[in-house]
Amino acid sequence: MNDKNIEATPESVTRLSNLEKAYALSRALPYIQKYSGKTVVIKYGGNAMINEELKAAVISDLVLLSCIGINIVLVHGGGPEINDMLDKVGKESRFVNGLRYTDDETMDIVQMVLCGKVNKELVNYIQELGGKSVGLSGVDGSMLAARKLTADGYDYGNVGEVIGCNPEILLANIGNGFIPVVSTVAKGIDGNPVYNINADTAAAKIAAALGATNLILLTDIAGVMKDPKDPSTLIPHIKLDEIEPLINDGIIKGGMIPKIRCCADALKEGVENACIIDGRFPHSILLEMLSDEGAGTLFSM
Amino acid sequence: MNDKNIEATPESVTRLSNLEKAYALSRALPYIQKYSGKTVVIKYGGNAMINEELKAAVISDLVLLSCIGINIVLVHGGGPEINDMLDKVGKESRFVNGLRYTDDETMDIVQMVLCGKVNKELVNYIQELGGKSVGLSGVDGSMLAARKLTADGYDYGNVGEVIGCNPEILLANIGNGFIPVVSTVAKGIDGNPVYNINADTAAAKIAAALGATNLILLTDIAGVMKDPKDPSTLIPHIKLDEIEPLINDGIIKGGMIPKIRCCADALKEGVENACIIDGRFPHSILLEMLSDEGAGTLFSM
Amino acid sequence: MNDKNIEATPESVTRLSNLEKAYALSRALPYIQKYSGKTVVIKYGGNAMINEELKAAVISDLVLLSCIGINIVLVHGGGPEINDMLDKVGKESRFVNGLRYTDDETMDIVQMVLCGKVNKELVNYIQELGGKSVGLSGVDGSMLAARKLTADGYDYGNVGEVIGCNPEILLANIGNGFIPVVSTVAKGIDGNPVYNINADTAAAKIAAALGATNLILLTDIAGVMKDPKDPSTLIPHIKLDEIEPLINDGIIKGGMIPKIRCCADALKEGVENACIIDGRFPHSILLEMLSDEGAGTLFSM
Amino acid sequence: MNDKNIEATPESVTRLSNLEKAYALSRALPYIQKYSGKTVVIKYGGNAMINEELKAAVISDLVLLSCIGINIVLVHGGGPEINDMLDKVGKESRFVNGLRYTDDETMDIVQMVLCGKVNKELVNYIQELGGKSVGLSGVDGSMLAARKLTADGYDYGNVGEVIGCNPEILLANIGNGFIPVVSTVAKGIDGNPVYNINADTAAAKIAAALGATNLILLTDIAGVMKDPKDPSTLIPHIKLDEIEPLINDGIIKGGMIPKIRCCADALKEGVENACIIDGRFPHSILLEMLSDEGAGTLFSM
Amino acid sequence: MNDKNIEATPESVTRLSNLEKAYALSRALPYIQKYSGKTVVIKYGGNAMINEELKAAVISDLVLLSCIGINIVLVHGGGPEINDMLDKVGKESRFVNGLRYTDDETMDIVQMVLCGKVNKELVNYIQELGGKSVGLSGVDGSMLAARKLTADGYDYGNVGEVIGCNPEILLANIGNGFIPVVSTVAKGIDGNPVYNINADTAAAKIAAALGATNLILLTDIAGVMKDPKDPSTLIPHIKLDEIEPLINDGIIKGGMIPKIRCCADALKEGVENACIIDGRFPHSILLEMLSDEGAGTLFSM
Amino acid sequence: MNDKNIEATPESVTRLSNLEKAYALSRALPYIQKYSGKTVVIKYGGNAMINEELKAAVISDLVLLSCIGINIVLVHGGGPEINDMLDKVGKESRFVNGLRYTDDETMDIVQMVLCGKVNKELVNYIQELGGKSVGLSGVDGSMLAARKLTADGYDYGNVGEVIGCNPEILLANIGNGFIPVVSTVAKGIDGNPVYNINADTAAAKIAAALGATNLILLTDIAGVMKDPKDPSTLIPHIKLDEIEPLINDGIIKGGMIPKIRCCADALKEGVENACIIDGRFPHSILLEMLSDEGAGTLFSM
Repeated sequence: MNDKNIEATPESVTRLSNLEKAYALSRALPYIQKYSGKTVVIKYGGNAMINEELKAAVISDLVLLSCIGINIVLVHGGGPEINDMLDKVGKESRFVNGLRYTDDETMDIVQMVLCGKVNKELVNYIQELGGKSVGLSGVDGSMLAARKLTADGYDYGNVGEVIGCNPEILLANIGNGFIPVVSTVAKGIDGNPVYNINADTAAAKIAAALGATNLILLTDIAGVMKDPKDPSTLIPHIKLDEIEPLINDGIIKGGMIPKIRCCADALKEGVENACIIDGRFPHSILLEMLSDEGAGTLFSM
Repeated sequence: MNDKNIEATPESVTRLSNLEKAYALSRALPYIQKYSGKTVVIKYGGNAMINEELKAAVISDLVLLSCIGINIVLVHGGGPEINDMLDKVGKESRFVNGLRYTDDETMDIVQMVLCGKVNKELVNYIQELGGKSVGLSGVDGSMLAARKLTADGYDYGNVGEVIGCNPEILLANIGNGFIPVVSTVAKGIDGNPVYNINADTAAAKIAAALGATNLILLTDIAGVMKDPKDPSTLIPHIKLDEIEPLINDGIIKGGMIPKIRCCADALKEGVENACIIDGRFPHSILLEMLSDEGAGTLFSM
Repeated sequence: MNDKNIEATPESVTRLSNLEKAYALSRALPYIQKYSGKTVVIKYGGNAMINEELKAAVISDLVLLSCIGINIVLVHGGGPEINDMLDKVGKESRFVNGLRYTDDETMDIVQMVLCGKVNKELVNYIQELGGKSVGLSGVDGSMLAARKLTADGYDYGNVGEVIGCNPEILLANIGNGFIPVVSTVAKGIDGNPVYNINADTAAAKIAAALGATNLILLTDIAGVMKDPKDPSTLIPHIKLDEIEPLINDGIIKGGMIPKIRCCADALKEGVENACIIDGRFPHSILLEMLSDEGAGTLFSM
Repeated sequence: MNDKNIEATPESVTRLSNLEKAYALSRALPYIQKYSGKTVVIKYGGNAMINEELKAAVISDLVLLSCIGINIVLVHGGGPEINDMLDKVGKESRFVNGLRYTDDETMDIVQMVLCGKVNKELVNYIQELGGKSVGLSGVDGSMLAARKLTADGYDYGNVGEVIGCNPEILLANIGNGFIPVVSTVAKGIDGNPVYNINADTAAAKIAAALGATNLILLTDIAGVMKDPKDPSTLIPHIKLDEIEPLINDGIIKGGMIPKIRCCADALKEGVENACIIDGRFPHSILLEMLSDEGAGTLFSM
Repeated sequence: MNDKNIEATPESVTRLSNLEKAYALSRALPYIQKYSGKTVVIKYGGNAMINEELKAAVISDLVLLSCIGINIVLVHGGGPEINDMLDKVGKESRFVNGLRYTDDETMDIVQMVLCGKVNKELVNYIQELGGKSVGLSGVDGSMLAARKLTADGYDYGNVGEVIGCNPEILLANIGNGFIPVVSTVAKGIDGNPVYNINADTAAAKIAAALGATNLILLTDIAGVMKDPKDPSTLIPHIKLDEIEPLINDGIIKGGMIPKIRCCADALKEGVENACIIDGRFPHSILLEMLSDEGAGTLFSM
Repeated sequence: MNDKNIEATPESVTRLSNLEKAYALSRALPYIQKYSGKTVVIKYGGNAMINEELKAAVISDLVLLSCIGINIVLVHGGGPEINDMLDKVGKESRFVNGLRYTDDETMDIVQMVLCGKVNKELVNYIQELGGKSVGLSGVDGSMLAARKLTADGYDYGNVGEVIGCNPEILLANIGNGFIPVVSTVAKGIDGNPVYNINADTAAAKIAAALGATNLILLTDIAGVMKDPKDPSTLIPHIKLDEIEPLINDGIIKGGMIPKIRCCADALKEGVENACIIDGRFPHSILLEMLSDEGAGTLFSM
């Protein structure tokens, strides 16, 4: 997606003639054929989750993809609503090794906000646009199994590491035409009943377990860029074995590293394509799936 | 259930000989035959939801019923956890015509506690006992539709009146062997996205929509008694057309009236039996379903 | 479709930004939802069958509609290829009451050109664009039953009147994902083995037998116009009971009368919408099905 | 099962309080979960077949097991009814190497009593208790194939050795919810039309062919005991590789040897558990399947 | 079937040229088309059951009919084997109103001979000719329900009157490709466990319950003849409303009356054709089903 | 088939007694059992396609085989009708290396005659005899893929070499009970849209792709004969590895060589039997399939 698009506005869109609309639709044919009957897992987060216009575009995109025969699973994190709730109950956050320490009270708040608020709002939204949807969490149908995260020897409280995905509950609902919306809370298998887990990892594990064709991570950047300040240096396609060299060269860095390692893991477990796309533009999912240019950076074998 | 049972303790139970156990199992045969393949909707609330031992017995009972081929749907309210959370965020409750006024902030809390906490704990518990379970709400699959409650001309905020149940999402999950646990939040059809609804009514509507054989409301009393202080005056069976006379005679009164009208509504919509059973004794569900005495008061045509 | 569109060219289309394309796709959502799983029968004839660019657009449109979950049946006549072949064998045409008299030799030529040439070319074309297709005729699976046409007391030779449609062979192939392309030759039920039949009537009978939602007749005019010379007088929507008055008033006239009576018959037999659209513009089928303006004149109850 | 149970009488059982009954049921949960959807083959003979009270308990047990989702196959021998019939027709028995010589006339009597009398009575009994049942023999659907027994070089007439089981007819009837009751007559594959076969062996072969989880042989002893006179010396669990040593040590002896070798064969062909239980106590099948103590001696890998 | 056929012998048959064989096969086409997927119930008795050559032809015929897609049910009585067994046990027969009084001991013998001997021999024979077969009785799956026969006020012991047929067990086995062979013993519904029933009536009730197209009763006469001594007076086709007049005229008389009333009852309950055919000629079933002449007398509406 | 049969006439056939007919049918049993549920591909050409009486016998035979549960696929060439049409349009034929050079105009004629005339007539005929049929070509469902034939370095125009068969469209129609009639026009995969292909090769490829049991090539000779003038020297059965020696010895020669190599190829790809039978005698297909003598020469592993 180049700069020109950024300036495009819905006003220009409504000026499209019918013929132009028809041609635009007609051009989507090969992509619709390519993905028909396939499964796509979308990790939803960042600006696309906060800005109402972007949110409307994301939900509309996934209902449309679902309508044309693609199985969609939406995995979401919590955005700023968890912080709001923690503030409300006067809970102060403590950080360990850069991650928020999740004590039992925080875990309760996280779970309530994710499963009880964000999840149901997304389900409701999809249904308002004519989709059929069901809200799930990693606990339902014992979908996501996790154990206590012990990275770098720290104690993060109830932060868990996803170690497996049982897709049965997802398949039952997809098979009946529902779009599952999944909150990233997992069932503990080490005595702790539930864990707070990372949404990117959860999405990758779900994609692998479902034999998904595509994993899409919505982010707040344009993709992997050689020069982060210059969108024209976007790398549109990276092969699996180019990832580690790009990390070593410092081109993939910071918060992007775990995201891209999630993509790499998904590829290794059989997902055909994983991509990081810019959620700051409306309909970037649709562009990625149904046009010849794609959006952001695509990873494949 | 007579007084003698109340004194029975698990200790006496473990003293049962193998033969006695085998005979007890053997006596359940006609009841297992009667309910095989049928659907039972259980409204779960009161003491049975708070006391840990009773909770264990309820969950164990419904997993057992599910195992022997009965389709179980569990509908739950929130118990004291909603109050705890309202306290935590310093929200004071206002009452209108005896019902708590549910402003938007309260609605958020109610929904988060029901869908995000109580629901997932129940799902987790069922799964620990070997059942397969999925947590749903009236929003998922647009299962429960509600509009603003306007009883007696008051404004109760986001309290809704259930006006319909679409059982599709329930059937999809039951058909795949999952026990649905349903939080009583409904999808608004009058502009408001969600409503807080009464759990008894929700259970009755769900039972009717599923063509359930039985609706079971767990309560904190022994059933309908001529003299509420004397358990020996329990009325074990009431016909549909005897309900209104018993209300007029003051034998059914107070909080029991709406509960029993729910039962009546379910019967009118085709549910074969509705009953109010005493959740203060362990395994009262099992007794009701699998023995010759039943528990509490049974309503039928 | 207004005049502006006529001037639109593929060049303007390729100038569309990605965002504009994405918005255009996104706007198709409600139409895709509306027609998903429905059946649409398209009568293909006139300019759209002769002009190569228009043909490409028609085939591409129906493959796209098929991809997004709409069941498509294409019914075709013969166009100028029948005349070419008659010329080749030196067969002179005789006309009776305005219809070509179809003697046995002509019937052979008609059947060979329709079933052996036009049909297979269309099947091949659909498959080149990635669709799955099967060529059928009214003889296959005894799909279309006809008897000798005796309109106005004339003898037209082997011209038949369609009197019934057995959709079994269509359903078998649709059910396996194939797009049936149907040649308008019918099985005689009055001793004559085969009949040459009218393609509009065949399409209407097939639509009725399949319980189709839409019947689309591609024509060489913009639709029903109050003043045929002024496209701005197009009547976009006509109710069933307005048809006969419009014929009586001379607004529907000439060759349009039998076409529109086909539409009326289809509506009476349960088809929801029938429309006459302008096949002289590319992608008019897509515009009719997936946009808010439609194309041509729509008939409904 | 210890001595105390033997003294237990139905009277003590009816004195059980409702709570005790409920707890007894509740304790069966893990066993019901364990066997749900599994197949159990029960060889029925000895006292349990003669004593009316024991018979009622056996039939009731297997109907109950069937109701809770376990596939049951009942394999029966003839008990004293064959002798009665031989007496009636004045047929004297001749014994060869300890086995009754089965001449053609005896074979006819055996087959008639097994298939025509005992089998139909069992089917009728199961149906009176609400089960669905079908009587079969090894001849039906060519279920059991046998050849002439030539053990130790003797001629035993029409006594056959089972060499294979085709479970198709069993699966067809189990799949439609029927409990098959199987008479131990086999189809000859060496020219002789039918053979009289050993019921323990037949049950073991059927269990193996069906991929059954459990083979249960009802006997008239408490199980394998170190001191046959002292029930407290019962060996509750024997591993496959302990069987031959126990035979060599004379602990397994006499008529138990072939029975236990049947169990061993079933284990080797994939049956998970085989057990010999005491049919002299009511409901020993239920105890074995649904309690923590079991009954008799269990054999496993 | 005329006299010439009686003289035809297998020798003449083997002299048939290949072409003649092929033509003969070819002529069966319309009959195979007519009965494909239909159900035919055959009552098997008389000479066709005793004479080995005729028996071979009957079994071969029904295996062939089964092979070409016709569902076959064979209902048999006992023939002389019941008498042989009664003789063997020294049981003397007592007759009441022309029917043998069936005391309990006789009932036992009847049931053993039918279900335990004749039935299994027929099942075995069908299987030897490559068919799949299962032996059933009216007791299995509670297929045939009967009550005590009280015709004309006499007591006939355990002779029952069939009052209903539950075809579930038949359908389960037919649906899996088995040819059911049914012994005419019924389940009592008035306290008596089993009843001896009439085979013609049982066949008629089974045909009605299965929605069979044809009921075929094999007999020892050529059909209904105006002059019983002159085969040329055979009445090939009788309408339902002609039956009673023919009885009144004495043309249908004696043992034929109940047989033909069975046929009439079957027709009234929806069976399309019922016929009485001569079992004294080989392959009369095949002639009846697959040729233009039929055999014996056909009854229809 | 020996000489005697040739003299047999339908008159002799109608003189067959009913018993003889019944025996003839009865003898077909083992063959019907053998082929039930199997697939047979028949290449139809030569005299059997021109002579009306023979044509009637072929169509009747395959409808009968279809009725008794055999899946039939009929593959046809064009016979003299292609020549007639070429004459009509005044197209002169040019021959290259013994094959007719197929220029574009000839290809059009070939395709129209095969798909538009011969195919539909066969479909119609099958349906008149009560079968369900559908006309297909190698283009439909992309069933047959071909590339330009370049044998011996010549250019044959649009003559193609079949290189693969996708049986999906055949299976879809067979699975719904239709008899596919296949015209031998293939889809080009090297740029050319369609190719004219050899019918024997097409039939062999189809048989292999469908996993057919039998490939039957109807010809105008009695089979492979040591002395072509003496039918008594017919070789009834040839093993795969005997084919090449017989070619080398000059016993298989001329036009038979490619036919028999087709048979050999089919055997190598898993078809159990391939045979060349004499289409000059009526019902030779039926004799081959349903009698003990067969017709013509059978090839097998």
